[in-house]
Amino acid sequence: MSLGPTDQPDELGAPSQKPAREAPTATGRSSRGEGKGKGTTIAHIAEQAGVSVATVSKVLNGKSDISPATKAHVEQVINAHNYRRRASRTPRSNVIELVFHELDSAWSMEIIRAVEMRAAQSNLNVVLSELGGTFRAPRALVDSILERNPLGIILVMAQFDEAHIEQFASRAIPVVVVDTFGEQPGSIPSVGSNNWGGGFAATRHLTDLGHTRIAVISGPKKSLNSRARVDGYRSALESAGITVDKALIRYGDFYLEGGYSHARELLSAANPPTAIFAGSDMQALGVMKCAKELGLRVPEDLSVVGYDNIPLTEWLTTPLTTINQFLPLMGETATDMVLSLAQGEEVRARQINLATELVVRASTAPPGLG
Amino acid sequence: MSLGPTDQPDELGAPSQKPAREAPTATGRSSRGEGKGKGTTIAHIAEQAGVSVATVSKVLNGKSDISPATKAHVEQVINAHNYRRRASRTPRSNVIELVFHELDSAWSMEIIRAVEMRAAQSNLNVVLSELGGTFRAPRALVDSILERNPLGIILVMAQFDEAHIEQFASRAIPVVVVDTFGEQPGSIPSVGSNNWGGGFAATRHLTDLGHTRIAVISGPKKSLNSRARVDGYRSALESAGITVDKALIRYGDFYLEGGYSHARELLSAANPPTAIFAGSDMQALGVMKCAKELGLRVPEDLSVVGYDNIPLTEWLTTPLTTINQFLPLMGETATDMVLSLAQGEEVRARQINLATELVVRASTAPPGLG
Repeated sequence: MSLGPTDQPDELGAPSQKPAREAPTATGRSSRGEGKGKGTTIAHIAEQAGVSVATVSKVLNGKSDISPATKAHVEQVINAHNYRRRASRTPRSNVIELVFHELDSAWSMEIIRAVEMRAAQSNLNVVLSELGGTFRAPRALVDSILERNPLGIILVMAQFDEAHIEQFASRAIPVVVVDTFGEQPGSIPSVGSNNWGGGFAATRHLTDLGHTRIAVISGPKKSLNSRARVDGYRSALESAGITVDKALIRYGDFYLEGGYSHARELLSAANPPTAIFAGSDMQALGVMKCAKELGLRVPEDLSVVGYDNIPLTEWLTTPLTTINQFLPLMGETATDMVLSLAQGEEVRARQINLATELVVRASTAPPGLG
Repeated sequence: MSLGPTDQPDELGAPSQKPAREAPTATGRSSRGEGKGKGTTIAHIAEQAGVSVATVSKVLNGKSDISPATKAHVEQVINAHNYRRRASRTPRSNVIELVFHELDSAWSMEIIRAVEMRAAQSNLNVVLSELGGTFRAPRALVDSILERNPLGIILVMAQFDEAHIEQFASRAIPVVVVDTFGEQPGSIPSVGSNNWGGGFAATRHLTDLGHTRIAVISGPKKSLNSRARVDGYRSALESAGITVDKALIRYGDFYLEGGYSHARELLSAANPPTAIFAGSDMQALGVMKCAKELGLRVPEDLSVVGYDNIPLTEWLTTPLTTINQFLPLMGETATDMVLSLAQGEEVRARQINLATELVVRASTAPPGLG
């Protein structure tokens, strides 16, 4: 798909170049192309709100030269009437917003690179933000996004309030989630991966090797994706005839420290596991560091499986067996989805779950080799 | 420093909100605040070029609704008259451009995160691009940056042509280089690090441990920074009374594969080194992988020193001794510099070299332990 300004000069020029189509008119009549479905037009909104069409237009375009009170009032009327711009008729800047909960590690880099590459192919630019960063309130970020009038928004491990989502919807700014958390409202298009399948494949690999004491360190318990992986783990154990031991199931975060501290507890217990399935490759690094400190060799004394398949995993001294989440493909797919939605196209599958794949390297082996 | 639109509403509003100050006038007179020093005004440029002030204004503001021929002609006149906008009088969008040669690995992430954080503190947004990416010609990137009229530009491992630098200069858009390459024109403010000192400290650490056969794998030979590190290496050897063996000096790239293949050659030679000083932490990972394949233990049989101190180095099974480049500080310092320049402030030091620091971990030990 090509969406550059060259191809679609009428739709995608930067806002500084082309006046918005609903530019105020002296008569206050709605300009063409605004409103949809129920016939609500920008003029109706203006009439209901008791303001000029110009003012509604400014609110929709994220201009900041309106009083907060007027803005809030117009927003309310827009909401009450469920007003929707038409995506294909709304002028946009050539910007894609890429919003992370937190910028972290090689994992984020895989997504960033894929989105940037895909955006560049369409002559679009990527504005990068951190939603969970200490220094920016979500409200301020949303306002600044509305001002930029982007082609679309990609959220990674980040969530907006329903009210913010509604603001984007009324302006026909598509939002797509790279869904590594699993809890987005069903209405939001998302690109995720088959977490249950990943958990199942990792654990099945370990039971196939002969392990029976297998621990799992997953991500946060409130993440549906973490739970799906643990459910995959349970199913693989059960299908191998192994009773699930709750003491071997841990939830934490996706970071190195979490992997390290859970591993320390698990491996210091009376009946320690012979294999650990970690929630991320970074966690797996934490597990391997702990193993080393306890004098355990990987894989002879302890098998370790990671999750993500970030590039450096194959370069570790003990290359890591892991689950490939195809992170670059997730970034590309999310970008393509945003571009399609921005053109007003219907997206066939709104919730895409990419397949996961087991990558066997050197960190796993049959138990008892030591 | 706080530079948000709230603090400086007259200077920093988004271009979509506020008309540029040299907005065309019927009389063609220059508006206030344009031109500097030699007294060249936008009106002079228009007169010389035989076009309207409006047209010159459009060219300066990166608007695209002018013919390429007119644009080129006006650019030429701007150049010939060495016209300069005044930074503090030019309206800007609240965007900082962050341009990488290539987005790669945890290294880039450290810079990105620091710039994003610093920008967010000032209510600014970061547009991320890859200059060396396969899909975007530098010309197209420059045009799109001019259209966005950013507060400033940070280049990382990337270079613009002199002509492009001149275009940014005439618009008073400050450019700061995070100088990991070492070959920027002296006129461009830069933030680098003490590469010679890093090379010296790494090598001195190894000679102090008793190594005499020490190899160095540096970055590209055409990078001044790579050469500075190698010179630091030479000086440390010489000051320890060790003759430099040219066969032990390698140039490559900063990537894993380069570290791996150079290490393979070095370690398979007749008189192999007992220590390798790598050009990046990623390269060091490649060296360690090669050592493992050859049955060499780190640090017992081979000491390895990295460069960068990316976060995961302390989490490796064998935590890596490395040179801390303070990458986050480099990103922050570059951002602060751009913000100061954008306010028209004089920057005291235009070429900042941050100190480097040896971080001793477990990958280095006296030779002959094995």
